[in-house]
Amino acid sequence: MQAKLNDQLIHYMCEEAVKRFQTINKYKIPVGVSNRHIHLTQESVDKLFGKGYELKVKSMLKQPGQYACEETVLVRGPRGEFPRVRILGPTRSINQLEISITDSFKMGVGRVIRESGDIAATPGFEVVGPEGSITLPEGCIVALRHIHMTPEIADEMGVKNGEMVDVKFFGERKAILGNVLIRVSPNFSLEMHLDVDEANAVSVKNGDFAILKKLL
Amino acid sequence: MQAKLNDQLIHYMCEEAVKRFQTINKYKIPVGVSNRHIHLTQESVDKLFGKGYELKVKSMLKQPGQYACEETVLVRGPRGEFPRVRILGPTRSINQLEISITDSFKMGVGRVIRESGDIAATPGFEVVGPEGSITLPEGCIVALRHIHMTPEIADEMGVKNGEMVDVKFFGERKAILGNVLIRVSPNFSLEMHLDVDEANAVSVKNGDFAILKKLL
Repeated sequence: MQAKLNDQLIHYMCEEAVKRFQTINKYKIPVGVSNRHIHLTQESVDKLFGKGYELKVKSMLKQPGQYACEETVLVRGPRGEFPRVRILGPTRSINQLEISITDSFKMGVGRVIRESGDIAATPGFEVVGPEGSITLPEGCIVALRHIHMTPEIADEMGVKNGEMVDVKFFGERKAILGNVLIRVSPNFSLEMHLDVDEANAVSVKNGDFAILKKLL
Repeated sequence: MQAKLNDQLIHYMCEEAVKRFQTINKYKIPVGVSNRHIHLTQESVDKLFGKGYELKVKSMLKQPGQYACEETVLVRGPRGEFPRVRILGPTRSINQLEISITDSFKMGVGRVIRESGDIAATPGFEVVGPEGSITLPEGCIVALRHIHMTPEIADEMGVKNGEMVDVKFFGERKAILGNVLIRVSPNFSLEMHLDVDEANAVSVKNGDFAILKKLL
């Protein structure tokens, strides 16, 4: 009798474990750590590298069509500069520099946390290339942490474009980060973007996994 | 009748709000952000600054008896160095360098997260002072995030020395950080120590508050 109860208990526990594994697996998100980088317009590229210059692909990023360029630029704020900031391609309709809060202290610019593309009234900065330099009145942001995903994955996870969610990290520096923006597009690949401060604070690196969790 | 019910409801809601405020207030912890710094033995001070040299107090820290010194040293790892690392006094029985994970990349040392004082088998590094330099075989740690408190506060919060807790942060980068070590001593003052990566990831600065929370 006791043996039979134990059998049932083990069976039940295994079923629970499988269910839990399936749930966790469903909400598993690969992490991508973004070091400081810049997006430029073709007009800016012309000024920095010469008229009609074409950026060269160094390596493709996980987000389809996006790539790290061979080229870097120097960026400068009121208090300091970074000499080799990677350009990400292709060129865009706005110039946007993405830094961490740690970087913002070194440059001497305000810490303005924004979604990509939302650069109104953000700090300005200077960009220096091999053929010229430009002073931009705005565009320096600390990127709002976010998750790229397709509409299919958003459906499966039960989240919507623009929604804020919480994400759980495991290991030595386990944590739940809140205010993580969901960004949905058929052109995206599932990936959570953190800056270097955030990645180090929770001790994760490229390709580690986090779990979507709506509880903060 | 309806009016009376509403009165009762408002009364109940106010009571709940007051209780919640009292609870939050009870678990409120001021944050202290630790930039990279070093603790030295008197023997090391002798070698770096000259025999019998006495470190000068620049400013007292929140933890009783602890202070930032006027003096800084250069610390060097296999890949890079920091030229002006603040010494914290008074001198201790061991040498210990505390850096962030971001710093560990620049120095080229392993990321070893440890409680203060637990330096066995941690990375070594070089220290350069105005009168000499020393090579230490171990002592470079990424400090385990922790909360200093007195036995009285520990009792009140219902936690014990050595316990791991979760701490909640509010604002734009709201988060819950887990694996936070409780350190209890009559000589401590209530304060949560974060490194720069952690502070920036949750966007807090010295004197901001966090809340103890056992739910992660």
